[in-house]
Amino acid sequence: MTGNRGVVYVGPGKVEVQSIPFPELVSPQGRKLGHGVILKVLSTNICGSDQHMVRGRTTAPSGLVLGHEITGEVIELGSDVETLQKGDIVSVPFNVACGRCRCCKEQHTGVCLSVNPARAGGAYGYVDMGGWVGGQAEYVMVPYADFNLLKFPDRGQAMAKIRDLTCLSDILPTGYHGAVSAGVGPGSTVYVAGAGPVGLAAAASARLLGAAVVIVGDVNPARLVHARAVGFETADLSQDATLAEQIAAILGVPEVDCAIDAVGFEARGHGHAGSQQEAPATVLNSLMEVTREAGRIGIPGLYVTDDPGAKDEAARKGSLSVRLGLGWAKSHAFFTGQTPVMKYNRALMQAILWDRINIAEVVGVELITLDQAPQGYAAFDGGAPKKFVIDPHLQLLRAA
Amino acid sequence: MTGNRGVVYVGPGKVEVQSIPFPELVSPQGRKLGHGVILKVLSTNICGSDQHMVRGRTTAPSGLVLGHEITGEVIELGSDVETLQKGDIVSVPFNVACGRCRCCKEQHTGVCLSVNPARAGGAYGYVDMGGWVGGQAEYVMVPYADFNLLKFPDRGQAMAKIRDLTCLSDILPTGYHGAVSAGVGPGSTVYVAGAGPVGLAAAASARLLGAAVVIVGDVNPARLVHARAVGFETADLSQDATLAEQIAAILGVPEVDCAIDAVGFEARGHGHAGSQQEAPATVLNSLMEVTREAGRIGIPGLYVTDDPGAKDEAARKGSLSVRLGLGWAKSHAFFTGQTPVMKYNRALMQAILWDRINIAEVVGVELITLDQAPQGYAAFDGGAPKKFVIDPHLQLLRAA
Amino acid sequence: MTGNRGVVYVGPGKVEVQSIPFPELVSPQGRKLGHGVILKVLSTNICGSDQHMVRGRTTAPSGLVLGHEITGEVIELGSDVETLQKGDIVSVPFNVACGRCRCCKEQHTGVCLSVNPARAGGAYGYVDMGGWVGGQAEYVMVPYADFNLLKFPDRGQAMAKIRDLTCLSDILPTGYHGAVSAGVGPGSTVYVAGAGPVGLAAAASARLLGAAVVIVGDVNPARLVHARAVGFETADLSQDATLAEQIAAILGVPEVDCAIDAVGFEARGHGHAGSQQEAPATVLNSLMEVTREAGRIGIPGLYVTDDPGAKDEAARKGSLSVRLGLGWAKSHAFFTGQTPVMKYNRALMQAILWDRINIAEVVGVELITLDQAPQGYAAFDGGAPKKFVIDPHLQLLRAA
Amino acid sequence: MTGNRGVVYVGPGKVEVQSIPFPELVSPQGRKLGHGVILKVLSTNICGSDQHMVRGRTTAPSGLVLGHEITGEVIELGSDVETLQKGDIVSVPFNVACGRCRCCKEQHTGVCLSVNPARAGGAYGYVDMGGWVGGQAEYVMVPYADFNLLKFPDRGQAMAKIRDLTCLSDILPTGYHGAVSAGVGPGSTVYVAGAGPVGLAAAASARLLGAAVVIVGDVNPARLVHARAVGFETADLSQDATLAEQIAAILGVPEVDCAIDAVGFEARGHGHAGSQQEAPATVLNSLMEVTREAGRIGIPGLYVTDDPGAKDEAARKGSLSVRLGLGWAKSHAFFTGQTPVMKYNRALMQAILWDRINIAEVVGVELITLDQAPQGYAAFDGGAPKKFVIDPHLQLLRAA
Repeated sequence: MTGNRGVVYVGPGKVEVQSIPFPELVSPQGRKLGHGVILKVLSTNICGSDQHMVRGRTTAPSGLVLGHEITGEVIELGSDVETLQKGDIVSVPFNVACGRCRCCKEQHTGVCLSVNPARAGGAYGYVDMGGWVGGQAEYVMVPYADFNLLKFPDRGQAMAKIRDLTCLSDILPTGYHGAVSAGVGPGSTVYVAGAGPVGLAAAASARLLGAAVVIVGDVNPARLVHARAVGFETADLSQDATLAEQIAAILGVPEVDCAIDAVGFEARGHGHAGSQQEAPATVLNSLMEVTREAGRIGIPGLYVTDDPGAKDEAARKGSLSVRLGLGWAKSHAFFTGQTPVMKYNRALMQAILWDRINIAEVVGVELITLDQAPQGYAAFDGGAPKKFVIDPHLQLLRAA
Repeated sequence: MTGNRGVVYVGPGKVEVQSIPFPELVSPQGRKLGHGVILKVLSTNICGSDQHMVRGRTTAPSGLVLGHEITGEVIELGSDVETLQKGDIVSVPFNVACGRCRCCKEQHTGVCLSVNPARAGGAYGYVDMGGWVGGQAEYVMVPYADFNLLKFPDRGQAMAKIRDLTCLSDILPTGYHGAVSAGVGPGSTVYVAGAGPVGLAAAASARLLGAAVVIVGDVNPARLVHARAVGFETADLSQDATLAEQIAAILGVPEVDCAIDAVGFEARGHGHAGSQQEAPATVLNSLMEVTREAGRIGIPGLYVTDDPGAKDEAARKGSLSVRLGLGWAKSHAFFTGQTPVMKYNRALMQAILWDRINIAEVVGVELITLDQAPQGYAAFDGGAPKKFVIDPHLQLLRAA
Repeated sequence: MTGNRGVVYVGPGKVEVQSIPFPELVSPQGRKLGHGVILKVLSTNICGSDQHMVRGRTTAPSGLVLGHEITGEVIELGSDVETLQKGDIVSVPFNVACGRCRCCKEQHTGVCLSVNPARAGGAYGYVDMGGWVGGQAEYVMVPYADFNLLKFPDRGQAMAKIRDLTCLSDILPTGYHGAVSAGVGPGSTVYVAGAGPVGLAAAASARLLGAAVVIVGDVNPARLVHARAVGFETADLSQDATLAEQIAAILGVPEVDCAIDAVGFEARGHGHAGSQQEAPATVLNSLMEVTREAGRIGIPGLYVTDDPGAKDEAARKGSLSVRLGLGWAKSHAFFTGQTPVMKYNRALMQAILWDRINIAEVVGVELITLDQAPQGYAAFDGGAPKKFVIDPHLQLLRAA
Repeated sequence: MTGNRGVVYVGPGKVEVQSIPFPELVSPQGRKLGHGVILKVLSTNICGSDQHMVRGRTTAPSGLVLGHEITGEVIELGSDVETLQKGDIVSVPFNVACGRCRCCKEQHTGVCLSVNPARAGGAYGYVDMGGWVGGQAEYVMVPYADFNLLKFPDRGQAMAKIRDLTCLSDILPTGYHGAVSAGVGPGSTVYVAGAGPVGLAAAASARLLGAAVVIVGDVNPARLVHARAVGFETADLSQDATLAEQIAAILGVPEVDCAIDAVGFEARGHGHAGSQQEAPATVLNSLMEVTREAGRIGIPGLYVTDDPGAKDEAARKGSLSVRLGLGWAKSHAFFTGQTPVMKYNRALMQAILWDRINIAEVVGVELITLDQAPQGYAAFDGGAPKKFVIDPHLQLLRAA
């Protein structure tokens, strides 16, 4: 085994496929990792949060290898690995987690205390998340492998459902976490802000959880068409009718039981295109308006502590003008943060393997080659209702 | 308004349709009830627990008007009723509950402390449950109506889905409670003991809750055929293969995440017909065997404090020879008791109204007239894979 | 029974004791209430939220009878009341709740859907909360009495502990709700923002819940002295040392497990007196800073939808510049809203009756006469570390 | 590093201190364990469940080194250990757990799936629990050390509180688990069956959790005297008055909110000494009788799958004649199994370090030397109200 190639962030608006080192069982700080494994990457997805970096909205340095949504095959094992074997097909949770700190022991792997010297929480291929090399590549190293990796029970079955299973590393658990934290259950009426992949994954999760009806809102017409095509109600936020009015037209009442913010800090104002300027608190404020009393609001959409590209000083520090009094009057609860993938991925794998959720269809999985990654980034940034999945070794595209 | 007719328990094995008094807004103790309403019964179901009485396995007195699964139309309102109006179509939870005691305030309406002088928990038309007159009749009185009744939002919609909505008074919430207390959620593997209506309702609930796969076990071949026809896996307990073996054949492992006892104290031993004697602890012991470590066992199936018809002294006192050490070694938890219908019926109504659950088809709803009730009891007792729903005013049969 | 006297809001900064009508069993809309009772008021407390009205920070009309923290004796019963008798000593939850709507059935009595035509949630003697007459008076009417009232088991015992039990109507459950929603349990380290009565009640609740250590922060020196005297650690926010530094000096780490905002929208900036201007988001932002990863923040402190007295346009609409990105990075959850008193008051009554919590001492209960109410308001507004409890019939002062 | 000595089970009724091998970083199956550490044992407690083995009620082989309640100092580290250093003082959860299987990831470390080839769940020095060498010794090996061990934050503070902290390895979390699973919270009334160390730890835990009142029942007079001395109410089950009557005398009602079975399968009948024969289901049946409707019953007391010493065939297979119908009528829930220590020990450590629980005093900790272990076993078996703690290196006895 020799070379490796990966998707590299070069500068604002620019990614390239470059030769990168073959991974080793060492930490970003150079410590030898007996608990790590090397994976041959089977599939690795482009994520909306990668776009924040690529758009230059973060302090990501040039040269960073991207990619935190990884599915692969174990090809090399550290000396301390006990539960895995070469040839296992595994899903990699995007959170790097040690399994040994207080947060990991309490299932809060999204804020692992030890894999990132700078702050809580680690990820592959992401700025400020610990320096773990990204997996939009041919090969990648995964530390704490026994703890982190989810092994698929059967290789053939895994390959047959790989387009769905590839969503287990991030997008599906992230949407699901939004739905769970919003309190979605059988019979719930649910509003999801944002018809991008996270929003659609939240909507699909709400359906899996038994929701009576799921309404997805967006300003992007292509995304709304897609959302309807995969079975959801929609609210077109570019229209004059308010969100509450559109909800009332569907449900008979202008409110929902549960709401999910799948947009985050790059939210735009509702209304006609001309008024769709960035308006970071728009989504949260609208969710408080349409969520019933004692309802819960799940916030998988990313809010950042610092936003160099923000339109004003407050937003640059991650401050938003939130109409908290509105939520308080309705006894709302709010749930934020990175999804602890491991809390959910095993159950969601089962739902996929037993055909209870068609997540690939819902989010619009489209396989591309590693060399097509730059075009995938561009198309996704343009709002295509697609989830681009890179197939670095052409194992899936050739099989299809 | 003049007469009333209802299904009356006459003696072991015998029920008759008789003239009975038109209901009044008074309690069994003769107190005037400003909070009560009179309903014209729209549908009222025969329940497996009615059979315990009819088989003579209880101390039910001759003359008892049966029926605790009731859907109706409000035709008369007490002076204190505030939220209901004449003409409303409502579902009646089988638990009579006051809404004012500690248990009701904490959502444990199955053990209301004030509607039954003899013990906690009341019901319509049931021995030892407070003396509330049953609703397998043309008209029935419901106390604490604002608290108890679930109003359907639209009359026309309600009539169109009445075969499903009639299951909200007992069978569906009861099965659902079993599934919820067993910890069923997305991706769960579930075993349901008993393919009667409660078992099927539990299975349908598990599916609504997102279960990956649901296996229903029974010894009755007709019921197993029906269970498969409505989409569940089955375990045939009349076969030589053990339950664990049959589960392994389906799942690849001999255990499930969650288990539900939808049989109760009249359980019979597994195996060939000759060995299917009553064996009250058989179900529970088998559930401990096939439920995974740290799993939960929901027990909606009825266990009684006294069973005059039991085969031995211990069982007559409701004692069972339970292999508790087995459950203890696996850290199992066990959940018993009457379902608190109100905790679930609103959500389940929404699931029905939005076509997320086809409960009528799953449990085999079959409409009959009031006069056909005795035949319905007999057929159900014979193991027919049906849920008989009485239509006392022929409002549904004529519409169909 | 003839006259009645009560504390009336006359205008900004001014309350008076005036003759008011003797209560009747009718709703604010004039409907006869068979479910209501009349209470002879035994004790009724001045609350920090009354101050919002008295300071003119709300749209409260002149003539409003104040008072929502009420303990009393039943002297008259409506025809539908079943569980109470004349002579019963009862605690009145400050939330008026019907016990019949969806929210009440789900224990969210703080947002009852039917007792306030204007919005969800009702209260006695409070602007925009349904028009229910306040209880800082000799007599008061309580609707839905069987549902709302908590009866003390023994009259003599109740009178002996009345200074503690009077805290059950609001202040203790409110603090407790903050602690519970912040996730406080055995071994927790807890920070409470605000050393007023709600903050102290939250601190006492945290201790009851088993917290390892509770730190209370404020800028008011007298309140900090009192907080230390009743056994809590303190953070003096008027000092140069940051909150995180002060926490680290106590705990060894600059963060707590759980945080409670017992201040609300009238928060002032930290630091020396000169810089203590109103700064509505100060508290929330500081709590996100000092709360550990995956921690929860309970917000019993009031945030309003409209604040006519706010310093800027945003705050007038209840908007705050919240540093949400900070909380998101740490996976925080936030819990807002009026406390659903009934969810907690029975358990807290038991804790008082069995001497597990000395809430009167902690919050500094001081009995005053009805005529002293105006002075009580003034002293409380001045920051006195006291909880003033009005004794309208001198039943407690004479006994003491 | 040279020798090692430990307490060895020799045969029914007999334990001896013998020379045993110095531990190595290898598994019982001979696999090298990079994740293990060697501890110098600081304190190690004799447990009631050790007695089951010593009494010959299990299939424990002669030669088994006893001891699963261990506190120690790290003296040697495997190559994969990352978070510990030599000199750290640590508490060892009695459950051996891998931190990598499904159960461990879900915090069910009591039923770890990989540390015991025979069944789920491992422990040190216990029959059928995976063959891990016991810690009633001078030195012991702990696998998966980063995951398993709880490090005390300060060595000096740890030594000063070691008599309390030694209870974190088993007894305190076990009692606490019983209390938590029984639903104990502020204001609860609680009954604990059994005044041995587990029962007392459950009682102390209930108090820490805010219980209003805790009643401990037993037939052993010395234990009841001790229970009263440390602040609990008691029920003397050797008296004629029934348990319900004794509870009513204390609470005014014959029932409690929460009940805990701290006795297990070796229960004896209540009543006078002559009738105190072994009666395995006595405790559970009495708990169903005295627990309120919708109450929960925590069962930390051990029930076994096989009991060679049982009085009848059913009990030999772990079957008990449980009056399940009684619990069902009251909607009880039952929680069984080994305590997952890691779920609780960090919080309980904090409670000890901040003086919120005096567990050593409550359970009657008494330090003994390693050579006194056989006498400790004998005294404990005789019912002494003591918790014997072995100090193998005389580090504590010399300091005292």
